[in-house]
Amino acid sequence: MFDEMWGAIEHLGRDARTGGYLRDAWSPADMELRLWFRQEAARRGLDLREDRNGNLWAWWGDPSARPGVVTGSHLDSVRQGGAFDGPLGVVSAFAALDLLRARGVRPGRPLGVACFTDEEGARFGVPCVGSRLLTGLLDPDRARALLDDGGDSLAEVLRRAGRDPDALGRDDETLRHVGVFVELHVEQGRGLVHRGAPVGVASAIWPHGRWRFDFHGQANHAGTTLLADRDDPMLPFARTVLHARQAAERRGVVATFGKVRVSPNNANAVPGLVAAWLDARGGDEAEVGALVAELTEFSGAEVTAESWTPVVDFDVALRERVAAAAGGAPALPTGAGHDAGILASAGVPSAMVFVRNPTGISHSPDEHAEADDCHAGVAALASVLEDLCTR
Amino acid sequence: MFDEMWGAIEHLGRDARTGGYLRDAWSPADMELRLWFRQEAARRGLDLREDRNGNLWAWWGDPSARPGVVTGSHLDSVRQGGAFDGPLGVVSAFAALDLLRARGVRPGRPLGVACFTDEEGARFGVPCVGSRLLTGLLDPDRARALLDDGGDSLAEVLRRAGRDPDALGRDDETLRHVGVFVELHVEQGRGLVHRGAPVGVASAIWPHGRWRFDFHGQANHAGTTLLADRDDPMLPFARTVLHARQAAERRGVVATFGKVRVSPNNANAVPGLVAAWLDARGGDEAEVGALVAELTEFSGAEVTAESWTPVVDFDVALRERVAAAAGGAPALPTGAGHDAGILASAGVPSAMVFVRNPTGISHSPDEHAEADDCHAGVAALASVLEDLCTR
Repeated sequence: MFDEMWGAIEHLGRDARTGGYLRDAWSPADMELRLWFRQEAARRGLDLREDRNGNLWAWWGDPSARPGVVTGSHLDSVRQGGAFDGPLGVVSAFAALDLLRARGVRPGRPLGVACFTDEEGARFGVPCVGSRLLTGLLDPDRARALLDDGGDSLAEVLRRAGRDPDALGRDDETLRHVGVFVELHVEQGRGLVHRGAPVGVASAIWPHGRWRFDFHGQANHAGTTLLADRDDPMLPFARTVLHARQAAERRGVVATFGKVRVSPNNANAVPGLVAAWLDARGGDEAEVGALVAELTEFSGAEVTAESWTPVVDFDVALRERVAAAAGGAPALPTGAGHDAGILASAGVPSAMVFVRNPTGISHSPDEHAEADDCHAGVAALASVLEDLCTR
Repeated sequence: MFDEMWGAIEHLGRDARTGGYLRDAWSPADMELRLWFRQEAARRGLDLREDRNGNLWAWWGDPSARPGVVTGSHLDSVRQGGAFDGPLGVVSAFAALDLLRARGVRPGRPLGVACFTDEEGARFGVPCVGSRLLTGLLDPDRARALLDDGGDSLAEVLRRAGRDPDALGRDDETLRHVGVFVELHVEQGRGLVHRGAPVGVASAIWPHGRWRFDFHGQANHAGTTLLADRDDPMLPFARTVLHARQAAERRGVVATFGKVRVSPNNANAVPGLVAAWLDARGGDEAEVGALVAELTEFSGAEVTAESWTPVVDFDVALRERVAAAAGGAPALPTGAGHDAGILASAGVPSAMVFVRNPTGISHSPDEHAEADDCHAGVAALASVLEDLCTR
């Protein structure tokens, strides 16, 4: 079942030229993936619900009677991302449910499969939009006003997709259905390779955030403007990129300028504006904050905080129970944000299961997990769900 | 007439948000401007011809009988460019012709108004596509294969515009019609401000070119990839930007990285590729060449030459004649490329008339020329044309 589901979606939103995925939230590819999710729910006789924030829930049993055990992840991707980040958790969720049914397990609690909307933030710049709205961690007015590269607001995009942007916001009714959430995800480093284990559990998510640095200058002709007369924002941007690397090394954190937008972006014009996004994370929250303050000061840029997620320490008792049910999986921290981290921050007991990534590469077409490890992930997830539903 | 024509086109392709122009070659805005050109030709009873490379020619008199005097410029813009670069020369050409007719001048030679296609290269990355194809300085196979940001080739774009891409290439028949070419253009520096003159003539165009620098790295997750494990192409790009500025100062030339394309351009991913375009120019051709060689070596990038235009020294006798007819206009060199430079390189006697730019700003919404100076430009151009047609 896993392989069949995987085969049904692996072409959706794939750039034939690069092999990378382009699955922006609410794009045609995302809409196809959402339809696929509905069909998988229908094939299994699950009760499909879309909440007010666009997240999808497929229920076996009625969660309004008693909060359920939920597993799942997301189906959107970063631009030119890999096949596994997100979809592995959704496909494994359905496959684990199939495994429980094949074993004749009758869960004592409702069991749900979730698909969170716009986890990556590739389109509107803010990650985990679906889970942040659900839990009230993202203000719905701010969400509605988010703009994509084409200048369309999230509100407009939702309206065009037949959704009601006025309905966005904290959704206590939906949240009450979630007794516990377990997200399976491909690992995005080589922690499990070093430990020789196909499957692990998350101990913590590093504090992390995004900041937009606007370097302002004066657009001008690249041929006729003397060097001395230029106000070229590419220069302070370049100095800040190099300083960020040094400062991150010194502080023991990671810092990345991975997204840049130059205006007007003409080969024959000095730019008027370089907008660059800093992603910063680390085990020590104070060091991440100090890095951003240092770069703000150094850069001279106009700096806007776009998102900030404090450290998430997953519930120790739940994590140990999940690790035991998964056959003694090792625990490891991660620098990546996830919907499970958002739910944990909002007080929902949450845990994560990681599947080994042989190269550690992620957010790239080269992201990979071996089929045997994926199948081990499904088996571990099934055991975890059985344990959580029946005990 | 000048003001009326100016008013008819100043809204076309203007970004209401910024006031900048978006007049890519063969875009809807460009097509409207081309239609406007045809209508202005028709209003004056001129004979309108579009050559095989998409350049427009409006003739007063038959140039197949005797090569004519041609004036004009281009109507496309850089992205977020100003209103004057290009259109000032075309509008002034029609206005000067009107002035000659109002004075009852009957030219002894055919008089033509030209509009060259895709002078800026904003869409396909190569400037002066129309004049380079016309003169054989751009290989038609290379031109047809040029791609815009959406991945469309020039051949496809031409086909969609109802043109025949197979017809591109050197066009001796059209070239034979051009006895002499005079291009009026807004100055793109403050040379005329320093000289206290509303109008000047070009002595030379600096040698200039564009090179694409591809910095290759490994796309990866911005949170989970240790700094030591990264191959982040943003770092060598930043070092190269800073080195380019130092090297340009040392060598007495100008160098600009004004266009950058990051892949995948996600805030939460280390880039896999940073492509950046170097524009380099200067009075000394050897220094420009040495700068590019130095940066190629320093950067470690894969470097592709996209265009190169050697120094253009305008014909001294023609220049002095134009300067005299324009009322004793001063001569000055320019760092900007122009169709007149392409024609001069191809052996067509050519000259340029500059109109004062109070700030020197160009390729920006802030580009400006005062109305009085524009009118002085038209008057000077009319005198030049009368002189060239009747003597």
